[in-house]
Amino acid sequence: MSDIEDNDDLEPKEEPLLIPPLNFSMVSRGVYRSGYPNKKNHPFLKKLGLKSILYLCPEEYSESNTNFIRKHNINLFHYRIVGNKEPFVDIPDEYIRDALVDLLDVRNHPILIHCNKGKHRTGCLVGSLRKLQKWSYTYIFDEYRRFAGSKVRVLDQQFIELFNLEVPYNKKYKPDWL
Amino acid sequence: MSDIEDNDDLEPKEEPLLIPPLNFSMVSRGVYRSGYPNKKNHPFLKKLGLKSILYLCPEEYSESNTNFIRKHNINLFHYRIVGNKEPFVDIPDEYIRDALVDLLDVRNHPILIHCNKGKHRTGCLVGSLRKLQKWSYTYIFDEYRRFAGSKVRVLDQQFIELFNLEVPYNKKYKPDWL
Repeated sequence: MSDIEDNDDLEPKEEPLLIPPLNFSMVSRGVYRSGYPNKKNHPFLKKLGLKSILYLCPEEYSESNTNFIRKHNINLFHYRIVGNKEPFVDIPDEYIRDALVDLLDVRNHPILIHCNKGKHRTGCLVGSLRKLQKWSYTYIFDEYRRFAGSKVRVLDQQFIELFNLEVPYNKKYKPDWL
Repeated sequence: MSDIEDNDDLEPKEEPLLIPPLNFSMVSRGVYRSGYPNKKNHPFLKKLGLKSILYLCPEEYSESNTNFIRKHNINLFHYRIVGNKEPFVDIPDEYIRDALVDLLDVRNHPILIHCNKGKHRTGCLVGSLRKLQKWSYTYIFDEYRRFAGSKVRVLDQQFIELFNLEVPYNKKYKPDWL
């Protein structure tokens, strides 16, 4: 039984149900966001044809996801970010700036951004991206809250508002929606 | 003053703030969803380079939006759908089936789906699309609720669950994510 469960190549006769990871959504052309994917989400992720994953937690990547990305030649960008925790722990601006450089390079697309729940760290990165896209704060925070649900963090919204670093992305490879 | 406000061609010296419509999001490559756009959202919509708009309410399209789509050669698909209202008014399946035929034709992309709030009628159409994509109900309803917020309608979720019509979309022009 465990042999069968571990075999990613097993082709079921019917087209399988696709199970997106928690809080999955498309951010812009070539960019997706979600919570932490698990084995059940692999057929769904495979369909996205990902070139890269931007993983935003300090923990090592799970064995099952590591096997998945090796098998499908997906590049992992790993930023070891600890989430905002009132009142003492701040997300370092530089990590988000560096993550945006990877994110804004079409050679890495399609790319999936994820943390654990797809709410806070991912929300800060996407919010900072929206600032670069010149979106109004009303909408940036509306989008942040849509994913954070009842777990909205004021520090995250403050992070987005104060984020103002120059992002040295490569203009030659920037997405055309920026 | 009103002359200036009405002039879409006026180019401000600084890059303007972009204001997405209420509940705006990307659904899949080439497909967006939102609430009813107004004049403030036009510079944002212009940037999306839309080819079509799928409008899901019985009312005539606003003058300001009609001018906008004429100016930018955007095609309007107008399905005059009355929203689900417990217990007597149902969205007709056939309207959603026909709207999906327009939606699943890449010649109409990029396309924006919208109703008034971007919650119920748009949620039913996107939920039915997710069924065609073979997404699990858990995730289909999670996405529906993310946009409906506190205004979740059981009848909408029931509509999505029962929607099972064959959708006669043109296979030659279907998006590659289907």
